[in-house]
Amino acid sequence: MIRAFAPATVANVACGFDIFGFAIEGPGDVVLARANGEHRGVRIAAIHGDEGRLPLDAARNTAGVAATRVLDVAGRADSGVSLEIEKRMPLSSGLGSSAASAVAAAVAVNELLGAKLDSMTLLRCALEGERAACGVAHADNAAPSLFGGFVLVRGMGERTSVHPLPVPDELFCSWIHPHLAVDTGMARAALGATIELARAATQWGNVAALVSALHESDYELLGSALVDVVAEPVRHRFVPGFHDVRAAALDAGALGGSLSGSGPSMFALCRGRSCADRVAIAMRDAFARASDVACDAFVSRVGGPGARVESS
Amino acid sequence: MIRAFAPATVANVACGFDIFGFAIEGPGDVVLARANGEHRGVRIAAIHGDEGRLPLDAARNTAGVAATRVLDVAGRADSGVSLEIEKRMPLSSGLGSSAASAVAAAVAVNELLGAKLDSMTLLRCALEGERAACGVAHADNAAPSLFGGFVLVRGMGERTSVHPLPVPDELFCSWIHPHLAVDTGMARAALGATIELARAATQWGNVAALVSALHESDYELLGSALVDVVAEPVRHRFVPGFHDVRAAALDAGALGGSLSGSGPSMFALCRGRSCADRVAIAMRDAFARASDVACDAFVSRVGGPGARVESS
Repeated sequence: MIRAFAPATVANVACGFDIFGFAIEGPGDVVLARANGEHRGVRIAAIHGDEGRLPLDAARNTAGVAATRVLDVAGRADSGVSLEIEKRMPLSSGLGSSAASAVAAAVAVNELLGAKLDSMTLLRCALEGERAACGVAHADNAAPSLFGGFVLVRGMGERTSVHPLPVPDELFCSWIHPHLAVDTGMARAALGATIELARAATQWGNVAALVSALHESDYELLGSALVDVVAEPVRHRFVPGFHDVRAAALDAGALGGSLSGSGPSMFALCRGRSCADRVAIAMRDAFARASDVACDAFVSRVGGPGARVESS
Repeated sequence: MIRAFAPATVANVACGFDIFGFAIEGPGDVVLARANGEHRGVRIAAIHGDEGRLPLDAARNTAGVAATRVLDVAGRADSGVSLEIEKRMPLSSGLGSSAASAVAAAVAVNELLGAKLDSMTLLRCALEGERAACGVAHADNAAPSLFGGFVLVRGMGERTSVHPLPVPDELFCSWIHPHLAVDTGMARAALGATIELARAATQWGNVAALVSALHESDYELLGSALVDVVAEPVRHRFVPGFHDVRAAALDAGALGGSLSGSGPSMFALCRGRSCADRVAIAMRDAFARASDVACDAFVSRVGGPGARVESS
């Protein structure tokens, strides 16, 4: 029996729609994989922590699809594998829940088979799970969940490439999770298919500034780069009090912040843990003033460790 | 009498439409500025090397507009200044000709007045000249011409910010200048007002990779980032044999390349000067096979020195 953990992630990171993501410490998913000679392929024995919302059918479950892909690619499609999934993070929260399940399943099943696949192959297997869950095989959650750290992803599906970016030592992340659900597919469709060229150029200027700021540990530049003129102007509506929450974060000392993925979670980046602690409380309090919906607040390093086998 | 030089520049640098530019060594513009008590404001006494194509009317000339703005900002609008402009680079070539004139004029007149203005103020004065020349106050030519090096620019006009990017030691630029002219305004209008979101995200992924590659001296990553999916697919038509020229550059060892600015000049980035020498010849020869138009080829470091006062 193999037990693997994959962390939650913050994708987009304001300006980097579909290209940036980083791992956070704390929440994530655990997948237990067992060889099971009684059947062929992947079966899901149980899912805990999802309140019955996720499909047990392996062909429709992100972890099931990723695990099946690992069996196929490893040439072991005849094997039988039984999965148990423990959600240790909220669903549809903007923290990469489907990616964490897919990555943990891919890592666990690969380990069960003797760890034959390299990590880029595992990523591509996990992306098949992402495609099943949200219709798009973007790696901006799966790659940071697998590799940890802060990553740049380019391309999609089989053509995905991943490049690690440096993280300044004092960079911390505050985030809140309002107990709402945002459907990723709906959030993507809401953006429309085109954007203004001038807006796009503003966005890639901010992307360039963010990458340079990470390399230079330039916190001021980093703050100026955490501006999303593409997705946030549409998606902020998914979160009651969005602008008040961000204003509270900035007032409490955050460098900047936005939606985590497509929301409803929001993140803010901060210099130093004590600043991040203050910011998390300020964000939670501001959300509470705007909405009766329950809301949790957390703090983490930016770019925590990636997926790992916890016991064999 | 003050004599100032401002270098030619490569803007956009493939993926970085409106945000990246670097200075090159060799071509550029010289502006001579003299105090002249016989009139008030800026007059242009002579322009050399433009074949009579540039306006002598200071209000319609990029150098005249920039110089007038320096007088205004310095509180010296009552002074009389006479300018002489020496074009040491081709017009409408994609190498930032109007920016070089504006920058050289701003630097020369500021020196004449006792060098009171800081360089960001000078940049904004030069951008007024750019606005007069091309209708848009983007700093992707003017900023590298003034500061030298490889720069990221964000914002426009008064809200422009400039951030220097590092340049790997072995990075060289080959470029060709076909003796064609591309009107910048036409080239901008050809792009249309909107682009597909997916295309924009590909572009900003390449922008992120380019910035990271510059910081890491990662030549392979840099080559993979020199891909423009936004402007080049439209503007390549301005240059006969565009794709053949680039293919020849890549075959000769270039990391990648595209149009310089809106063209017709094309650039390629190379690791090492000897590679850049081979690439420049390969580009020129490929262009000669595609067109009867005359064409020059050059090699320079990427990110040469910025504008300077040459003698006082």
